[in-house]
Amino acid sequence: MSIIDDYIKKNEGRFLDELFELIRIPSISSQTEHKPDMRRAAEYWKKTLDTAGADKTEIFETEGNPIVYGEKSINPALPTVLVYAHYDVMPVDPVELWNSAPFEPEVRDGKIYARGADDDKGQGFMHAKAFESMVATNTLPCNVKFMIEGEEEIGSGSLKTWCAKNKELLKSDIILVSDTSMVARDVPSVTTGLRGLSYIEVEVTGPSRDLHSGIFGGAVANPINILCRMIASLHDENRRVTVKGFYDDVEEVSNEDRRELAKAPFSVENYKQSLNINSVWGEIGYTTPERTGIRPTLDINGIWGGYTGEGAKTVIPSKAYAKISMRLVPNQDSAKIAELFKAHFESLAPDCVTVAVTPHHGGQAYVSPSDSAGYRAAHRALTETFGTSPVPVRSGGSIPVIATFEQELGVKSVLLGFGLESDAIHSPNENYPLSNFYAGIKTIPLFYRYFTEEYTQ
Amino acid sequence: MSIIDDYIKKNEGRFLDELFELIRIPSISSQTEHKPDMRRAAEYWKKTLDTAGADKTEIFETEGNPIVYGEKSINPALPTVLVYAHYDVMPVDPVELWNSAPFEPEVRDGKIYARGADDDKGQGFMHAKAFESMVATNTLPCNVKFMIEGEEEIGSGSLKTWCAKNKELLKSDIILVSDTSMVARDVPSVTTGLRGLSYIEVEVTGPSRDLHSGIFGGAVANPINILCRMIASLHDENRRVTVKGFYDDVEEVSNEDRRELAKAPFSVENYKQSLNINSVWGEIGYTTPERTGIRPTLDINGIWGGYTGEGAKTVIPSKAYAKISMRLVPNQDSAKIAELFKAHFESLAPDCVTVAVTPHHGGQAYVSPSDSAGYRAAHRALTETFGTSPVPVRSGGSIPVIATFEQELGVKSVLLGFGLESDAIHSPNENYPLSNFYAGIKTIPLFYRYFTEEYTQ
Repeated sequence: MSIIDDYIKKNEGRFLDELFELIRIPSISSQTEHKPDMRRAAEYWKKTLDTAGADKTEIFETEGNPIVYGEKSINPALPTVLVYAHYDVMPVDPVELWNSAPFEPEVRDGKIYARGADDDKGQGFMHAKAFESMVATNTLPCNVKFMIEGEEEIGSGSLKTWCAKNKELLKSDIILVSDTSMVARDVPSVTTGLRGLSYIEVEVTGPSRDLHSGIFGGAVANPINILCRMIASLHDENRRVTVKGFYDDVEEVSNEDRRELAKAPFSVENYKQSLNINSVWGEIGYTTPERTGIRPTLDINGIWGGYTGEGAKTVIPSKAYAKISMRLVPNQDSAKIAELFKAHFESLAPDCVTVAVTPHHGGQAYVSPSDSAGYRAAHRALTETFGTSPVPVRSGGSIPVIATFEQELGVKSVLLGFGLESDAIHSPNENYPLSNFYAGIKTIPLFYRYFTEEYTQ
Repeated sequence: MSIIDDYIKKNEGRFLDELFELIRIPSISSQTEHKPDMRRAAEYWKKTLDTAGADKTEIFETEGNPIVYGEKSINPALPTVLVYAHYDVMPVDPVELWNSAPFEPEVRDGKIYARGADDDKGQGFMHAKAFESMVATNTLPCNVKFMIEGEEEIGSGSLKTWCAKNKELLKSDIILVSDTSMVARDVPSVTTGLRGLSYIEVEVTGPSRDLHSGIFGGAVANPINILCRMIASLHDENRRVTVKGFYDDVEEVSNEDRRELAKAPFSVENYKQSLNINSVWGEIGYTTPERTGIRPTLDINGIWGGYTGEGAKTVIPSKAYAKISMRLVPNQDSAKIAELFKAHFESLAPDCVTVAVTPHHGGQAYVSPSDSAGYRAAHRALTETFGTSPVPVRSGGSIPVIATFEQELGVKSVLLGFGLESDAIHSPNENYPLSNFYAGIKTIPLFYRYFTEEYTQ
């Protein structure tokens, strides 16, 4: 493949400049003020695919953000790889914790620092540049399609509908996604499982207006106190989630499978050190990788109420709020869990307050087979790039649309991620090592080649 | 006193205009950006006292906000009333809940709507205008001094020091304060008790940076979950505060005194209706007026952490925060309670987080005697204005500096408040009925007269 490697080497500066242009578009899907940026990001992706050599590109309108489609067909007898990526990113606050402007990418110590540097502009863009490199060197071994969406961080609502309507267009043999992490810097991995998600917002209302906490304190239920009490009761003394029925559908992983998963390198000491914590925390009876890999969880992602400014204000607020998400494992149904949560949370509310529970979005968990052509091709490609065999890992994260692809299109996905846990995705100072960006661009053509080989055997 | 009433009647429009000028100065003491407004408010008060006829006025510099002093001495053989008020106000957020601009006073339905309309610009200004009315009609019956501070809402730190240094200047026979409420619209009252306060901010730190809640969720302690659990544990099943030692110094009020306090008119149905709540809440075994009048309490005044913007963000934040205040009853020491809280809260923290506990400010509770010249004078003055006898009440609120006055100056205070509970002080749409503003201006000269009579008997 040295002809491709040469091409990549010669163009690596331009690849980076072009990625930076994409990153500079602040395409935060959860904030309506960024609506125009969503379109700009979609148009930039279309232009990128056109330039790279796609035969047919199109921006599909949806009820939400546009979807970019592109394809290059070389031979209907050869397999088709369908690439999925997303151009939307997470919000950037707390912005004061960033060391450089989130949408002004900067390279420091060999890493790109910016919102989206990894998730998923950096990782997604590798596919555009790998595709360009294969077309330019006339080494594309199979057919390829792209679908790039702008709602991954808010639940992929439009893409789900769009997939259901465009099954013929999206016909393919494997879906290829780079939106996950490697298990360690020198240990490549293929993600074989993803957790599902239910994301919910709750509002607790006490008195109809904010009250003076002296005059009323002690005699009127304070919605913050009540919310904290309700949240505290969502875990028991074994740190298990107390939502009624929450574990009913959880598949218990066999001891054999647990032993297999325990083979991935993991050091609890390094883990604690990298997060600067004295001890880990989680469901009693499971290891740290198991707690994120095979067990469901419930976290408060945000809480607010009352006075949060400088100094003191003696107030009992009328309302308190929280954003709560649950990560789910295979067999747990996202919508069912959201309903169980709603019923449980409402039942917790004492008579002195009212609660409103609003589901935001969700997605099913996913397990990907390791005895498939896709997995084997990924394994060979990663082994060639990194000089060492990749390990299968269960990620704690969620890409809800992956389960939808299987359901709607009947196609499995290969999760070929090049991120690192230290990339701080969703956090201030998100970053992505340049070496991983270029390793990805090199590995993807290898995947295409080995998948075509597996397929045509 | 009809000569004074005539003067008030003729000038009532101007009195209101002048109050509005004071209200328009956004003198929020807890926010440093309003530092220049504190001085403007102090200067406006000085000008008001000069114009009203004070012989000697001065702005005293402090380490914090300036203190306005003024006096008029007519005869050293007569008693001296020392008037206390404050020109600082609470923050205005959530500003979106105001129906008119907080610092642009508006009269609607016979009420002044603005931040400070009641607390304490409206109530404080009554004293300036009552003084002016007595001087203008040559009916001032005794000596008078004013001390107007700008840090009441943040703990009166500078005034405490200043009082200790100016004992001679502040020599007086009674301190007169209008910064409390009447028990009901047609029921005047004299406040005979105030709760003390300890105000504390807590910070819980988990991992050293915000984390992706999928990748880390379930394996790392989430500081919001932990904070909620710690807060929930601060009350037991009887809704008593669990801070170790919290009740040690609380004086149990005798059944006889409880029967006496129960005589103040109170309807739990009206109370619930006015707050739009289904049920009241509080320490088991006490009535609603007792819960605010004679029992200490603990409230969360603010909480924040994680993502609080629009939509969803799947984050485990590094930090979560809360502002927590405790209202105290006589014998509980504010500083001791702050220490007990700090020790208790720190002891609650599991090993997987660190906590920082920072006391903001505090003040002691206060009880004022009802068998004194000051109380009797207030009783007579209110009876004359309202045509009905006032009732003694224990307020749930705090004016920490009142206990300091007794300690430093050896002088008791009379709490002659004209506010209503519906005035929404510290809340959006703070208001003050015009009728109460003018009733106060009429009542204050009566107090001076009857206090002088009591004193010279």
